[in-house]
Order: sequence, then structure tokens, then C-alpha cells
Amino acid sequence: MQISRGVEWAAHAASLLATLPEGTGLRAEALALFHGVPQAYMAKQMQALSKAGLVHTSRGRQGGYRLAKPAEEITLWDITAAIEGKGPAFTCTEIRQNGPCGTKPADCRKMCGIAAAFHTAESAFRTTLEAQTLADLLEEVVADSSAKQLRKTEVWLEAQAVAIG
Amino acid sequence: MQISRGVEWAAHAASLLATLPEGTGLRAEALALFHGVPQAYMAKQMQALSKAGLVHTSRGRQGGYRLAKPAEEITLWDITAAIEGKGPAFTCTEIRQNGPCGTKPADCRKMCGIAAAFHTAESAFRTTLEAQTLADLLEEVVADSSAKQLRKTEVWLEAQAVAIG
Repeated sequence: MQISRGVEWAAHAASLLATLPEGTGLRAEALALFHGVPQAYMAKQMQALSKAGLVHTSRGRQGGYRLAKPAEEITLWDITAAIEGKGPAFTCTEIRQNGPCGTKPADCRKMCGIAAAFHTAESAFRTTLEAQTLADLLEEVVADSSAKQLRKTEVWLEAQAVAIG
Repeated sequence: MQISRGVEWAAHAASLLATLPEGTGLRAEALALFHGVPQAYMAKQMQALSKAGLVHTSRGRQGGYRLAKPAEEITLWDITAAIEGKGPAFTCTEIRQNGPCGTKPADCRKMCGIAAAFHTAESAFRTTLEAQTLADLLEEVVADSSAKQLRKTEVWLEAQAVAIG
């Protein structure tokens, strides 16, 4: 069971966009540069966030990305689902219906105990991520960073930010 | 994020082994037949359970598998970890240390908020599965099955069971 590296990148990129003044954003190039990762793969994650309605995209030479919603309304689950899909990790193929002693489909209205346990476990996983917004993450980063570090980042972002309507 | 089909198969197979009298087991062939799945892939899952110390294997023509512990002591997490590995699904690559504004490693002693949230989410997932033993699953199956269905299964298992020391 693996969560792709793209989720980490998208979560960091979206958190960075959350720091920008309204109406401004960053190009995929700047997002990749800031995080020290390949631009093509970062752009792919941003496209997935765009498709999920989490970021707005503007095209053209100055094209870039900005959050489509307030940082308080985007959760780590939203980001994870945008990259990994919303579907369950555990797929029940109803193998209890197979073989010489298979249970009749009519007797399988209640979810199999194994599938039910995974369903509950995945709900617990999702609930934890739903409780964590980009605003929460940002608050923590600011609290944990030195004034010098924050100022350096601010200057860099001011130089890189592009207007996005 | 996907949990492999092998986890479903291994969980069902281990639950079936939990119904057998002490000192008896089933061959991979019987386990595959009972669940209507390919023998080679079922055998692969059973080998993973064996490697994790959850089942005992006896070799030879009558070779087979039996649980290595009481059903009360084997959880769905044990099965999942045996098939999928115990490692975290989310891997933090510390990308906050990258790029022109990267945080110094010395300032990264506290886990990144994103990694921390996934760590908590995965703990919640694991805790749910740890609370579900094979004995719990079996109790539920017995309660939900008709006497006829249980008898049919019992007869089939009696015919297929092999002695395993």
C-alpha cells in the first residue's frame, strides 16, 4: 500500500499557494523550483488539482496556478483524493460467493466482515485527513519557522508571483 | 492508493484455517478451490503469511497450511502487513529542505505537518484493523450463515483437511 510521491508534492505546492495574496499565483516552473523537483511531474500534479477544482489555472506565458477556494476549505483529503482517486483502497470481490461452498448472492446483502473492517479503517484514515486544512498546515509552518526564513520565502514569492484572475 | 487483492484472499484463507480442528490444515490447492481463485496466486499469499509467522507450513504431498497462533491472536492488520509490508504508505522525502528557500536540516527536527497528518491517519487505519481478529470475523460468519450452509462447509472441510504437526 503506497501513497504516491505526487501527493506529497501537491500538498506542499497547495500549501505554498495558500500563502499568496488574492489574485496571484505561481507558474508550475516556480512551484517545481521552490520544491526542488522536476517541473513536468509537478505540472502533472497541479493538473490533477485543477481537474478536482482545487486550483484555478490561467494559460499563456504568464500562466500559473492559484487556489480555487480559501485555504480553510481545502483539506489534505481533498488533495489526496485529487491525486490518488476517491475510490476505496480495499476492493471486495465477494470471493465468499465462489467455490463449492459459496454463499448465495441473496445471502450476501450484509457486507462481508473483512470488507466492513477495511471500510471502517479507510473511513478513519480519511477523517483524519479531512480534519487537516491547508490553513492549519500553514499556521504550523509559520509558527515553526524563523523570521529570517519567512522573510526569505516572502521575498522569493513576491518575485515569482504572477497575476491570475 | 490500492490494497492488493492478495490481502482479501489471505484474509479469507486465514479465516477458513481458523475453523479447522487443531493439528489439521489445508493444502494451497484446497484453499484456492474453496475460494475459486488461481492456486499459484493463493500459494503466493500463503507463503507471505508463512514468512510473517502467521501460518505453519508442512511440505510434501500432503503438505498444507495451518494457523501458527490462535485465531484470537491474529488480526487483520497482521494479515495486511504480511502481504503489503509494514512500512508507511506515505513517505516523506523532506522536500521542505529543497530549493532556494529550503529549511535547514537542523530546523527540521519536528516532523513536517503534512507527514504528521498522514502518520496519524495511517495509525487510525492500522488501529481499526488491529482490533479485528480472525476469531471476530469467524464469529460473525457463523452468526450470519444458515445451518445448511455451515454444514455443507463443514463436510467439505472434513474431506479436504490434512494432518499438520
